[in-house]
Amino acid sequence: MPKHASDNHNSLKAVRIGIDTYQESVVYMRDDCHICRAEGFGVQTRVRVQAGAQSILARLNVVESLADLLPAGHIGLSKIAWDRLGLEEGGSVSISHPAWVNSLSYVRSKIFEHPLNQRQLQAIVNDVLAGRYTDVHIASFLTACANHLDIDEIAYLTQAMVDVGTRLEWPEADIVVDKHCIGGLPGNRTTPIVVSIVAAAGLTIPKTSSRSITSPAGTADTMEVITPVDLDLESIRRVVREQGACLAWGGNVSLSPVDEILIRVEKAMDIDSQGQLVASVLSKKIAAGSTHVLIDIPVGRTAKVRSKSAAQALQRVFEQVGGRLGLVVKPVITDGSQPIGRGIGPAFEAEDVLAVLGNLDDAPDDLRARALFLAGQILEMAKVEAPGSGENRARELLSSGAAWHKFKAICAAQGGFRELPVPSYRYSVLADRDGVVKAIDNRKLARLAKLAGAPNARAAGVRLLVKVGDKVVRGDPLIELCAETSGELKYAQTYLEQASGMIQFRRS
Amino acid sequence: MPKHASDNHNSLKAVRIGIDTYQESVVYMRDDCHICRAEGFGVQTRVRVQAGAQSILARLNVVESLADLLPAGHIGLSKIAWDRLGLEEGGSVSISHPAWVNSLSYVRSKIFEHPLNQRQLQAIVNDVLAGRYTDVHIASFLTACANHLDIDEIAYLTQAMVDVGTRLEWPEADIVVDKHCIGGLPGNRTTPIVVSIVAAAGLTIPKTSSRSITSPAGTADTMEVITPVDLDLESIRRVVREQGACLAWGGNVSLSPVDEILIRVEKAMDIDSQGQLVASVLSKKIAAGSTHVLIDIPVGRTAKVRSKSAAQALQRVFEQVGGRLGLVVKPVITDGSQPIGRGIGPAFEAEDVLAVLGNLDDAPDDLRARALFLAGQILEMAKVEAPGSGENRARELLSSGAAWHKFKAICAAQGGFRELPVPSYRYSVLADRDGVVKAIDNRKLARLAKLAGAPNARAAGVRLLVKVGDKVVRGDPLIELCAETSGELKYAQTYLEQASGMIQFRRS
Repeated sequence: MPKHASDNHNSLKAVRIGIDTYQESVVYMRDDCHICRAEGFGVQTRVRVQAGAQSILARLNVVESLADLLPAGHIGLSKIAWDRLGLEEGGSVSISHPAWVNSLSYVRSKIFEHPLNQRQLQAIVNDVLAGRYTDVHIASFLTACANHLDIDEIAYLTQAMVDVGTRLEWPEADIVVDKHCIGGLPGNRTTPIVVSIVAAAGLTIPKTSSRSITSPAGTADTMEVITPVDLDLESIRRVVREQGACLAWGGNVSLSPVDEILIRVEKAMDIDSQGQLVASVLSKKIAAGSTHVLIDIPVGRTAKVRSKSAAQALQRVFEQVGGRLGLVVKPVITDGSQPIGRGIGPAFEAEDVLAVLGNLDDAPDDLRARALFLAGQILEMAKVEAPGSGENRARELLSSGAAWHKFKAICAAQGGFRELPVPSYRYSVLADRDGVVKAIDNRKLARLAKLAGAPNARAAGVRLLVKVGDKVVRGDPLIELCAETSGELKYAQTYLEQASGMIQFRRS
Repeated sequence: MPKHASDNHNSLKAVRIGIDTYQESVVYMRDDCHICRAEGFGVQTRVRVQAGAQSILARLNVVESLADLLPAGHIGLSKIAWDRLGLEEGGSVSISHPAWVNSLSYVRSKIFEHPLNQRQLQAIVNDVLAGRYTDVHIASFLTACANHLDIDEIAYLTQAMVDVGTRLEWPEADIVVDKHCIGGLPGNRTTPIVVSIVAAAGLTIPKTSSRSITSPAGTADTMEVITPVDLDLESIRRVVREQGACLAWGGNVSLSPVDEILIRVEKAMDIDSQGQLVASVLSKKIAAGSTHVLIDIPVGRTAKVRSKSAAQALQRVFEQVGGRLGLVVKPVITDGSQPIGRGIGPAFEAEDVLAVLGNLDDAPDDLRARALFLAGQILEMAKVEAPGSGENRARELLSSGAAWHKFKAICAAQGGFRELPVPSYRYSVLADRDGVVKAIDNRKLARLAKLAGAPNARAAGVRLLVKVGDKVVRGDPLIELCAETSGELKYAQTYLEQASGMIQFRRS
């Protein structure tokens, strides 16, 4: 018997069945398929699917032969499975059992609180990248690591994530700066402003951002409303060479491909853990070729980090892991007591960013002040300005129009300006009493904007029309809620009726 | 505008699309569907599907309109979605956004090590039962709880799991006994023997067992080879009334329906955690109406519990949680150093059980001795026998044929005997040296049996032909590996080649 005879027996004609299963590969096989019988495949089995030199793991859904979805001798592939295998119409695939995934035993060991070593974390990262983990396995890994990784483990995880991705190099620059906000503060869209100021000062800042994890918008989501962000590696290199900076989405260039996979599952779980956070941020910074990184850690009762002491702990983790990996990291603790700017959601936040950069009269003061502080810190960190004078220099670069000019040049290099989208459905929330705004709940506002459709619906979100300390009179508008579809607007309105304390008042 | 106008706009003709997605409901909608656009539904969105008074949550897969899988105005439903809604051909469903799942915030809070209170665990259990958790959420909940539940939390979880299920009552019996082995020891199939002995002594023991979680066979899998086990509530009541005992699968009677859901995900994750284990076991015992429960905790280097101290810790958790819930629980620590009996896998284990019950000459001594010990403990616990004399009484009931008679009567009441299935593919592993067996790895043997297809393939598994201390000569058979398909046999053989130390020798 020839060695590969059984492989030929396991061959089926591939059909692009036209079902979109997002990032999880699914294949569809008939319940009377000889391979299912011969291999003992059942519903939900994980199978290895091979086409030429390419192979993937996929989940099996069994199709009733009577249902006429698939001819005998054929296998259906979901969109992502078809694309990953690079199949052509009429191609064949062979199906087999996947090998045992050894690194899953490390995940189990981590669940029972045994620390993971470098080799184990490398194996896990490699297997995740190869698609050997189901979402259930990834969820378990992320949960086991949430809050339970020590400095060694975070450094190993970060390094492993860098190793499997692409790494940018900037031989022309000795210092390459970057910034990152750990999030949790709606509307805190300082990045485009800071990048423009810092680049206007002549520094190199190849900024790649992620899309939203659990928030109503990530910087990539917001920038995408203004200009193309899905640049490939070559475009990023070109834009940074021309402008000293870019404002691109990191997911398209495989800087940290495993991070993108983990973030997808984190998003479904709606959690965001400390070790994972540090590994995610620093892996992308290292891969982007950065040498000096500023981290913005907003602290507030309803922010991601709720206490000064938690912020200081996170600060230390960033510094220690950065130090291990040869990176200068400066984490700064900032006020996270209420949303920044007016807009929450991609298009609304873009509006605020453009107002600050354009020096418009109605630009939100808090966003402007925050961006100037952060840009100043970077200028000092990179030793372009003396300690204490960074913020003034940043203010000059913004008010002179130099930052606005730089921002426009970056967008032009990335593919030009886009027109901001306009929402189709609006609903205004009015004050039902007189009073002074006492507190604003970041989390509830973020959830409201998400329920309205942000960030997938670009024009959807919330415009917050008051700040803590503002005096309001019954009937004054507090929030403008916007959606692209009536279903989403209704969904958000339902939440608005249920959620109490989103904006709290005291008597004036 | 009439109040339900939008509901009518969200109505689609339902089609049973003939795809089996196991326990996860999936619906298929066209990418040009007006509802997807109006509601902002995208790939992988969770949607609420309503048909009359029934509603479920389902995952959305988007189908290309060009692919011709679905006519316009139609929605496809996977098998389980169709069945759960109780749809008829030609029926309609309406689609909407699911409400926000509040209890997920408790899961997040648990990830960050905040203990859960009674109300929070009730909410989580209710939402899991209602299908509001995806597998990713369940995996995260299970991982967060693994090794991190205190006695209060385990008691609350257990009670919440009992509350959402059916509860049996046995007004005729003051004492209702039960037994459970926490597993991890291949071939340790004492339950059918213990139940038969104890019931022959006149005690009430309404035994419901689960299918395998992570092992090559659960008691329900093994018993199903011999007799029907998927009894409904009425049949269980009848069999126990007639025979004082049953040997049924618990999953068909909703004794602890949430446990079945959690176990399915635990199986995919291949973990089994202490708090979850205790809640799973005790919730089913309480729901079955038990008052006195014996727990078998095998300890061994490659068993589920690896050290005496870990076993004692588990013992205490069982006793404390049992005490909280008004149950007498007696956990006994037993030898778990090597597999019990010869067979590993449903049919092979059934063979061993029948040999012991039938007093056959070649019945495995270790299985017999263990069953007698456990049955004796139960007789003493229920005060049917004085301390120290339980095992002797158990021996009499077994050797007299009383237990065998009782077993046959139970099977007859459950629907009669079945013929044991025979595997199609066999492979013998022979000793490659002379020596004495020093150690046998429970985990590796269990994995081998699973790779061969156990427990889904009933006839598949391993027959272990040696015990620790046995002298073997080069060429002696050590293991017989059996499968129902050639693919699974090959898969197990591949593992056999890779795994070292499954059976270890020393020079004689």
